[in-house]
This record gives sequence, structure tokens and C-alpha cells, in this order.
Amino acid sequence: MSGRDSAAPYSGSRCLVTGGLGFIGANLVHRLAGAGADVTVVDAEVASHGANVHNIEGVARPVDVIRASVGDTDAVGDAVAAADYVFNCAGQVSHLDSMRDPLGDLELNARSHLALLELLRATNPGAPVVFTSTRQIYGRPKYFPVDEDHPVQPVDVNGVDKFAGEQYHVLYAHVHGMHACSLRLTNTYGPRMRLRDDRQGFVASFVRRALTGDVITLYGDGSMERDMVHVDDVVEALLLAASTPASSGEVVNLGHPVSLTLAEVAHAIVDAAGSGTVEYVPWPPERAAIDIGNYKGDFTKARKLLGWEPAVDFAAGITATVGFYREHRSWYL
Amino acid sequence: MSGRDSAAPYSGSRCLVTGGLGFIGANLVHRLAGAGADVTVVDAEVASHGANVHNIEGVARPVDVIRASVGDTDAVGDAVAAADYVFNCAGQVSHLDSMRDPLGDLELNARSHLALLELLRATNPGAPVVFTSTRQIYGRPKYFPVDEDHPVQPVDVNGVDKFAGEQYHVLYAHVHGMHACSLRLTNTYGPRMRLRDDRQGFVASFVRRALTGDVITLYGDGSMERDMVHVDDVVEALLLAASTPASSGEVVNLGHPVSLTLAEVAHAIVDAAGSGTVEYVPWPPERAAIDIGNYKGDFTKARKLLGWEPAVDFAAGITATVGFYREHRSWYL
Repeated sequence: MSGRDSAAPYSGSRCLVTGGLGFIGANLVHRLAGAGADVTVVDAEVASHGANVHNIEGVARPVDVIRASVGDTDAVGDAVAAADYVFNCAGQVSHLDSMRDPLGDLELNARSHLALLELLRATNPGAPVVFTSTRQIYGRPKYFPVDEDHPVQPVDVNGVDKFAGEQYHVLYAHVHGMHACSLRLTNTYGPRMRLRDDRQGFVASFVRRALTGDVITLYGDGSMERDMVHVDDVVEALLLAASTPASSGEVVNLGHPVSLTLAEVAHAIVDAAGSGTVEYVPWPPERAAIDIGNYKGDFTKARKLLGWEPAVDFAAGITATVGFYREHRSWYL
Repeated sequence: MSGRDSAAPYSGSRCLVTGGLGFIGANLVHRLAGAGADVTVVDAEVASHGANVHNIEGVARPVDVIRASVGDTDAVGDAVAAADYVFNCAGQVSHLDSMRDPLGDLELNARSHLALLELLRATNPGAPVVFTSTRQIYGRPKYFPVDEDHPVQPVDVNGVDKFAGEQYHVLYAHVHGMHACSLRLTNTYGPRMRLRDDRQGFVASFVRRALTGDVITLYGDGSMERDMVHVDDVVEALLLAASTPASSGEVVNLGHPVSLTLAEVAHAIVDAAGSGTVEYVPWPPERAAIDIGNYKGDFTKARKLLGWEPAVDFAAGITATVGFYREHRSWYL
């Protein structure tokens, strides 16, 4: 947890949140609006992605929503030019979809962001922009914990495209002097995930299966370790990054001091839900081909540069998360 | 130099060379045709790129030329499906142009190659495909000599896009079982470079200025070191890579045991041409922003995996190169 009030700089500011109807974007929108920011959302509402209009229900102030891709420069031009801060959270997150429709993934995770950066450079180069990248770009880790110097070795098209999207931001900082940076998120969970299918990570899948009294399927023995970060902590990092000039041109890992196995995560969710079961099956080949094994990230740089620490521990975070979905079940299932 | 006859596997085979009217592609076309291959060229002939119809004059056998982008799946579909080998040399090579037209660079260096790979996967997944990548993706080296494990830290949009294009090839090998690999080229020189402007690397610029009796301008003190590889050695590596199954899924540096400063290169060219002069000026800011400093590559992996060694030393190679341009001056100036 940072010592400063991370939301204070945003009171009265105009914030643009791309992917703002999706999981992480919408949680950020709630936080920004609560802090008194004027928020504009850009969201393409791509079918099967995380956008859900219910995700911004109950937001503290009215939010403008532009239904367009971030790469649609005509649609987003005015909002980009007027923004004091840009939180660039839009993207295609499914690893399997990136292999089934690689050109679509390239469009949504790389080309559209390059178009956005070009627009920002031309019309509003002083506005900080923070990109949500992913630890997926590290591929199968060569060492633990994985720091930002770890080799980039994507195991799927999504990883290639997210790295390109991220590196454009880094470049625009270094070459054009813009305040652009990238946070490399690890497994994020919390309210407002897409639950309807298995595209938005395993926690969403597990929560849906638990709430519907279904079976949670683990591959192998479920012993793969992950860092689980609550979305409130990710939102905190986004706020800190956009208001920290020293983050410009940097890539910064998020993480959590406690690693959990997928089996531990599954059982915690079943316990919180009071329903669902866990089963173990052999690895399907198409999953095994793009799996990265264990992951443990080093977030020392986030601590030093941003003053960021994750504040939510998993037991409390997952219980509250399951409670949220139980309360708003009709929005997500 | 490899012990085996590297061109032998290609006699009677159907070879597709993308960017085959350009510098490296055309030199490969000459070699393949001379070895008895049936060669089809795909080249978009983008204005300001390296395509030059004179580049395939004097080729040993007739060559089919498809004038299209490699990403134009309708235009290249039949040729891709019929190929025994694919040499994927097409691309936008200007670092400055990639900053002026980043979306164009993304199209030519990443999206079109992903489309080509998708086509190959659907219609001809058994054909080996070799991609020409670049050491530019390493950015400013953190250590010397730079091996393939060096962090990827592109300093311009070209580097981001070339890395994406390369990594798609690596992925399609690992995930889809295709024989795809990537050679990371360093400074390449020889016949058939575009000389008309300064887009195709400093050697082309130096040769033009020397031949026209003009001034070769070096930034700073001209002491930046580079590995200079003759295009015949690059062609040799391409032939070896496509016929070496163990290269599949690999990225492989090319290099040269002797490093030269830009000043040494410039003076060698002036000496070979018998005309031109060398001057030193301060670094222009837009150049300094994307310069990488010294570069010295480690090509141990190419030696071990492909049995490749550069055979051409710079003094002989540059003298022959200048002679080629003097003989064919009207094609290039």
C-alpha cells in the first residue's frame, strides 16, 4: 500500500479509460469516478471479450462511453485530445483465441494501440498513458522470481502482440518524450470479470463453475503456482503509474508475495462459494502447447518506483469476489 | 564456410522468395536459380524499398514474379501452397521510416508475415520457412558479444515489428510443428542494395556517395563498431537454415569475427571507389534517439546449428561490391 493518496491527483481531471467496460478498466472507472474524475470510456464491446454494461453500474459520477476500438481514430480523436490521463486497458486476453484468430489478436493488442499512440503524439503528447501488459510475454520462466530483465519469449500470438503493444508505449516515451509506461500484470481476479466462458483466465472459470455447482477441472495435478493479485491492487498501481513521472518509459511487474497453486485457488473458491467440486484430468495437448509452467514474479521495481505493494490477501479477496458475483449473479451468468 | 554443398537440396525444388526483388532476396534468387531451383518471387515493390527489377537480371533460369504483398493471401495463395521452401525476406528496413509511418511498418514487418504463416499453416505446413530478422531488436547492447539470449529492447518501431514478425515464425514452429526459423542479420552489404537514398543502411549510403564523388558524413567520431557480413554469406545461411530441420523454432544470429568502425568502412569504400571524401559531424538528435552504439554479435549458434561461418572478408567483399556498382551504375544511381 502506498503512503500517498493515490487517487488524489485525479479529482477534477479528465481520464480516458480504454476497455473501460471490461474487468480491469471498469474497476478503474469506479475508482476514478469515486475520486471525482470526469471519466470517458472507450470500448469496442467485442463479442466474447470482457465488456459488460453492468460493470459500470453504480459508478459515482456519469461516465461517457464511446463504443469504438481504440484504433478508430475518428471515433476517439476528441476524447484522446481532451484527456489529462489515458489508461489503456483495452485488449484481447484469450490465449487460445489468439491462436485461432491471430490477425484479430494483432489488431486488438498491437495495431490499435499504435494508432492510439500516434493520435496522442499528434494531439496530446503531454498526457500520461499507462498500458496494461502481461507477464505472459516472459513465457516459460528461466528463473524465479521473474523480474523485468527476464527474456521475452512469448508462447502464443497473444504474447507477441501484447509485447509489441507494450513496447510501442516504451518507445514513444524514449523517442518522443511522452509519459508512457507499461505495467506487466500477473493473474488478476476480483469483481467484474467475464464469467460466461473460460476466456478471461482460470479464476473466472473457477468462480462460474463453483457458483453453478459445476466441476472445476484442473490439468495435471494442479500444482502450477501463480501470483494472485486483486484488481483493487492493480487499479492502485495504474493510478500510481500515471501520476509518477519517473515511470515514463518503464515496464513494471506487478505481483504478490504469496504464490498459490491452482489447486489451492480452486479449493478456496469452492469453499467461498459453498458449492462446486474439483477434478483432475490429463493436460489437453492444445493447452500444454502454450502453458508456461510455474510463475513467480518479482515486483521490487513496482515497490521502488511507484511505492506499490499489493494490499489484498487472497483469502479475503476471493471471499469478497465470490460474494460480489453471488449478489450480481444475473449480470454475469 | 560449411562442409556440405548448401545449395544441393534446392536443385529441382520450388522455392518461394518474398522480397525477391530486393537486396538480400534477389541475391538468394540468383543463388537458388543457379542451383537449379524453380524460383517464384513475391514482391510488393513498395516505393522507397529495395525492389529493383535489375536485381534479377542475368538470373540462371526464368523466375516467376508475383507483384503483391506477402500478406495478400489471394495473390500469393497458389505459390505458397506449391512451395517446397519459403524464404521470407520481405520487409520494410528503414528505421527512420518506421518512426514516420509506424502503422505502415507494422503492416509490412508483422501483419503481412502473420497472414503468410496462417496461409502456410492452412495449405502447406510441411514447407520450411526462414525469416530474415535483425539484430536491431537487441537495441543498445547490455553486453558483448550479443548472443541470442540478450534481452530484446527495440529502440524503434521497426525493431518492435521485426521482433513480432520473427516470433510468429518461432511460435508456428513450436505450437503448430512447422519448420520455421529466424535468422537475425547484422549489417549486410554487397551487390543489389538500394543506393538511391539512405534508407537501406549506411553501406549503401557510403557507396553511393563515394561513387558520385560526394561527402560521406559520419556522426560523432565514426568509432561505432559493426559486424559487416557479405550478402553471399547471408544467402549461405538462408540455404543452410531451410535445409536443417534442427533450426526449427530457433532464432540464430549471423555475424563476423572482425568488427569494423564506421570510419574504417567509409575509408575502405572511398579507397575502393577512388572517389568521395569522409567528414565528421555532430549527431543529429533524431538519429541519436534511435542509435544503438557499438554492436558485436555472437554467432556461435549459427556455427554449431547450421555449420555456418562467414567466408567473405570485408576488404575483398567491399572491393567487389564497389566494382559491381561501378559496372551496373545505371541500375542503381
